[in-house]
Amino acid sequence: MEEAAARIRSAAGSIAAPDAAAARSARERQRRLTKPPGALGRLEALAEQIASVTGRPRPRLDRRLLVVAAGDHGVAARGVSAYPQDVTAQMVANFLAGGAAINVLARHAGARVQVVDAGVRGPTPDDPALLRLRLGGATDDIAERPAMGRGLAERAVASGIALLDGERSRAGVDIVGCGEMGIGNSTAAAALVGAVTGQPARAVTGRGTGVDDAGYDRKLDAVERALSRHAAAGAHDGVGLLASLGGFEIGVLAGVYIGAAAGRVPAVVDGLIASAAALVAVEIAPACAPYLVAAHRSAEPGHGVALEQLGLDPLLDLGLRLGEGTGAALGIALCDAACRLLDEMATFDEARISGATGGARREA
Amino acid sequence: MEEAAARIRSAAGSIAAPDAAAARSARERQRRLTKPPGALGRLEALAEQIASVTGRPRPRLDRRLLVVAAGDHGVAARGVSAYPQDVTAQMVANFLAGGAAINVLARHAGARVQVVDAGVRGPTPDDPALLRLRLGGATDDIAERPAMGRGLAERAVASGIALLDGERSRAGVDIVGCGEMGIGNSTAAAALVGAVTGQPARAVTGRGTGVDDAGYDRKLDAVERALSRHAAAGAHDGVGLLASLGGFEIGVLAGVYIGAAAGRVPAVVDGLIASAAALVAVEIAPACAPYLVAAHRSAEPGHGVALEQLGLDPLLDLGLRLGEGTGAALGIALCDAACRLLDEMATFDEARISGATGGARREA
Repeated sequence: MEEAAARIRSAAGSIAAPDAAAARSARERQRRLTKPPGALGRLEALAEQIASVTGRPRPRLDRRLLVVAAGDHGVAARGVSAYPQDVTAQMVANFLAGGAAINVLARHAGARVQVVDAGVRGPTPDDPALLRLRLGGATDDIAERPAMGRGLAERAVASGIALLDGERSRAGVDIVGCGEMGIGNSTAAAALVGAVTGQPARAVTGRGTGVDDAGYDRKLDAVERALSRHAAAGAHDGVGLLASLGGFEIGVLAGVYIGAAAGRVPAVVDGLIASAAALVAVEIAPACAPYLVAAHRSAEPGHGVALEQLGLDPLLDLGLRLGEGTGAALGIALCDAACRLLDEMATFDEARISGATGGARREA
Repeated sequence: MEEAAARIRSAAGSIAAPDAAAARSARERQRRLTKPPGALGRLEALAEQIASVTGRPRPRLDRRLLVVAAGDHGVAARGVSAYPQDVTAQMVANFLAGGAAINVLARHAGARVQVVDAGVRGPTPDDPALLRLRLGGATDDIAERPAMGRGLAERAVASGIALLDGERSRAGVDIVGCGEMGIGNSTAAAALVGAVTGQPARAVTGRGTGVDDAGYDRKLDAVERALSRHAAAGAHDGVGLLASLGGFEIGVLAGVYIGAAAGRVPAVVDGLIASAAALVAVEIAPACAPYLVAAHRSAEPGHGVALEQLGLDPLLDLGLRLGEGTGAALGIALCDAACRLLDEMATFDEARISGATGGARREA
């Protein structure tokens, strides 16, 4: 456990500030490209952000990774989800077989998917493509007690850091997107968002996968109980928050964000649960915030609250509420488009194109 | 000219209504895919729309085309743009050399670009990749007189229909995006949007490529004059609108939309100018409306007015204001993602995943 805490401290301490010179160089190049200044809108700011965090004036995002972490939640036993808990393990099998939405969108975005069993109750396939962390079978019921011990929370985060480090050494990672799967995890994420922002349960709790009215009432009750218990007894640092309210997959993703920032890799945040993990990451390592890109605004009310807390303006607003990293995959494609524009477009000089006149009358 | 009118009538008359059975089949398949119902938000509706207009329950968009039509505008002589008129021809050369934003985004979206000289004043490169329609050197100044004669307007639209027909026979087209280039064409487009919607010049006129205050005043004045002249003397059918206020490139794009609908090909609309062309197309052939997909909401005020008139809800809102089809390229990528999800995802049965329980308590 001491080893996990040391790994977290080391990674958090090694995160570089964004490179202002790279950002300036990217901004200057944008001005020379064959388009009116600012005409590519958000894509220009996005390319500059990626230049600044990677430290490369013309970054390329050729090696794209999506981490999809799965975990089970004790709170699921309260009937807070529209789906039975078995679905977590079944969806892990679907991810490995390539039939889930995230597989389709990862292919679309040219990203590799790394599926992680962060702590799934049911048996997951014996497949070498699956990273088995299995921090536990499921978290404890957060409505009644902490999700996990502090040591386990540290191990979850440290595992995410190690995952990203390993991927960087083995295959290289230019950008990473974070997704998740876990029946009950929108309840945990809502509680985390509420605890960090001070918003009441009702403001952060949505219908997740589409729970009915009675299920929504149970979910709201669970989030309220979890928030009261946490306010009375939880530790309020990042690891403490995770131990009190989180999930194993949320901890792993928090570690992935921290590891990405430590490796100067931009990280694309998916929906509510991935954003809750980003909140945990920023509580642990505030320096990772500039490395985050919000892919989209999901239909979950807590997601908007989390994004505001993170200071992130999402790229897409398509009413997605699936998780798995589906929004992150679309976001990675937009990041790639933004960086390719910066790198591949011709300048006015190269294309021998006349510059702006400001609209002065040029001919009679 | 009679031939052009006949071609337009023939294409407009051959547009099929959306296929309700294909849409229903797509909707039913969406319900069986391994995700909560509706969890893919707008992407589900988009896939259904494409199924309904193509008549294919699981459409694939493998052959993607971007038409970029360029034309010059007499009104540019009033100093309504931040750039000199030469830039139209210079940018055509840039498109052909592959250095413009649309080239980068077309590569990103896996789309082929067809560049069209619809009527550019300056010399355009002698390049077999360029489709030379050259309906004229530039339109007349719409602040003072009609942009072109009615016969020329018919030829512009008919050329666009022929372009799409030719592409369908030669290479096949599963989806088409429409973009444009033309110094002064946001003035023409603003006038078209104002004439169709009845909105005043100020509500539909923006800064285009970034004209300064004095240029904006000249632009506003030109749009006001064009709208007054048109109200007094212009013909208000689709071809009449185009002849009065349009551009050659706007007419060609209107024809591409009509030809696409006649060929059951969904058409992705870019920004203000491409949307003005869509308004012309729908005035000529109302049946093409269901075939249109709005890629994005640009920073131009007239664009939102045009989209509302067209009844289109844009997929993206990234502050783009470049034209060229840049938003359409990103929109094509989203259409492709939506269709691939519909086609490639596993169903609950295939993946052996438990269905929704509605959130009923499943365990003690």
